[in-house]
Amino acid sequence: MDIARIEAAATRLAGHARRTPLLSSPFLDEVAGRRVLVKPECLQHTGSFKFRGAWAAVSALAPEVRKRGIIAFSSGNHAQGIAAAARMHGIPAAIIMPSDAPAAKVAGTRGLGAEVVSYDRATGDRDAIGAALSEERGLTLVKPFDEPEVIAGQGTCGLEIAEQASEAGVTTGDVLVCCGGGGLTSGIALALEAKAPGLRVRPVEPQGFDDVARSLAAGGIRRNDKLSGGICDAIVTPQPGELTFPIMSRLCGPGLAVSEDEVLRAMALAFRHLKIVAEPGGAVALAAALFHGDALEGETVVATVSGGNVDPATFARALEIA
Amino acid sequence: MDIARIEAAATRLAGHARRTPLLSSPFLDEVAGRRVLVKPECLQHTGSFKFRGAWAAVSALAPEVRKRGIIAFSSGNHAQGIAAAARMHGIPAAIIMPSDAPAAKVAGTRGLGAEVVSYDRATGDRDAIGAALSEERGLTLVKPFDEPEVIAGQGTCGLEIAEQASEAGVTTGDVLVCCGGGGLTSGIALALEAKAPGLRVRPVEPQGFDDVARSLAAGGIRRNDKLSGGICDAIVTPQPGELTFPIMSRLCGPGLAVSEDEVLRAMALAFRHLKIVAEPGGAVALAAALFHGDALEGETVVATVSGGNVDPATFARALEIA
Repeated sequence: MDIARIEAAATRLAGHARRTPLLSSPFLDEVAGRRVLVKPECLQHTGSFKFRGAWAAVSALAPEVRKRGIIAFSSGNHAQGIAAAARMHGIPAAIIMPSDAPAAKVAGTRGLGAEVVSYDRATGDRDAIGAALSEERGLTLVKPFDEPEVIAGQGTCGLEIAEQASEAGVTTGDVLVCCGGGGLTSGIALALEAKAPGLRVRPVEPQGFDDVARSLAAGGIRRNDKLSGGICDAIVTPQPGELTFPIMSRLCGPGLAVSEDEVLRAMALAFRHLKIVAEPGGAVALAAALFHGDALEGETVVATVSGGNVDPATFARALEIA
Repeated sequence: MDIARIEAAATRLAGHARRTPLLSSPFLDEVAGRRVLVKPECLQHTGSFKFRGAWAAVSALAPEVRKRGIIAFSSGNHAQGIAAAARMHGIPAAIIMPSDAPAAKVAGTRGLGAEVVSYDRATGDRDAIGAALSEERGLTLVKPFDEPEVIAGQGTCGLEIAEQASEAGVTTGDVLVCCGGGGLTSGIALALEAKAPGLRVRPVEPQGFDDVARSLAAGGIRRNDKLSGGICDAIVTPQPGELTFPIMSRLCGPGLAVSEDEVLRAMALAFRHLKIVAEPGGAVALAAALFHGDALEGETVVATVSGGNVDPATFARALEIA
């Protein structure tokens, strides 16, 4: 993985992915006690940064491989990113989802033209189902984060942050990234290493699911004790990736963990002052920027809002705070 | 008013106002039955397009006049636009508001550094209060829409629409604009006349408050029968402006009017598929794009979302539909 791969992905994404703006509000600066710049990837196609990695991976395939189609395991933002990238390339996509996935997510993925293949979480073997389907149809698997082209695609968000922060006069400080498996975090870290070395990436996770923070502190991969049970489920993964962890370990500052109450308050403040819709997992970095200022360095902090795919009931909970 | 004035305003706004992106979703296209491109001015500083006109007006003043400060009458988005533009220029701003203005709006305007001067709606004479204050301190009044530099500033939104629509391959069709006094509508119409003559502006208003549509149809200024009582109050004005009406009359297609139910559904769809927060008055154009397709022309429709300053309770009403 190097910057050339990210720049090549950026060339392929140009005109297809959105260049999201950098937002700010004096009211957020006041809460944080420093200047806050927000990179709202909720405004990306399909409502999350995942579209970048999906497009990068699909567009990197040889045409004769690509045309047979792609396959992914996901019931979340990766599924929609893959579905949209496939649709825009005019190729088939199959998404393997548990049969108890929320109906809205199934409908959303189907609405983007993908075939949804269900399996029973208790009795089915999703890897076997995926392997059989791939072999039968010649589909290419696109993994959600531990995949070089996916990391390169997410890294294009980092190229934009480097440029936009520089335009705003910011060349030093912490860049807080919502972190699951580490695809976005490691991609942005690689981009900033090359383009804005004074900016340092720090992964942010929900409290109780801070495998990356603990892995970074321990100098080796640590797992989460549990994998569900919080409002930030969408960004919870068992452990950092085999590809992403060494990158994060080399480039990132210490991880941060935020509470669910802080996440809901960050969603409410993003609603009120930025007019964007953040999902809980997508609001962890903003929550750290706003409420964990003592742990940050620099006069300015950059925070990603990685996605906005939140159900109305959960958003309404945040609004009660707004 | 001509395009040179809008381009001069764009030069002064560069690096200060946000260039908002053009958003879209295949799900919205499906609802509308055509391609829908959304210009989200809710992402502008202070959460509405009003910042553009305020900045244009303030920056056009001679330095020795500007430094004495500005004054405006508003309890809404114009107040915040003026306050922010004044703050960013380092000059004082006084905003005259009725004493029964919502506390959140007063606090929001004060939070941006403006002085809020209250008057009693029943017994006070706001014009006299404003005139006395202006004379005493040498403040310059910035009117909300019937003011050439304000129209020019709002027109910069039209310059961006012309460029961004062209990049998206769109050169013909209707451009729907949320319309109160007509500052944004006439500004965008002037910009498109010069830069994208195949795009036609059409004002959109709430049903029951469609003074502009009726004025256009009658060929002369008509007033609204009532001035409050709807969720779109923020964009309701007594009648089109003396400066804005002739421009709209010359350049705009027929006006459209949407129901409150359509407005709430548009807010819900913008939440779900674009991840933006639209205020009711700011969602009327999107509502027309989505639900009044029979009255539109072209394969693509552009809709402005003019603002996102909505209270949580009203937004929650929209979420119940989402």
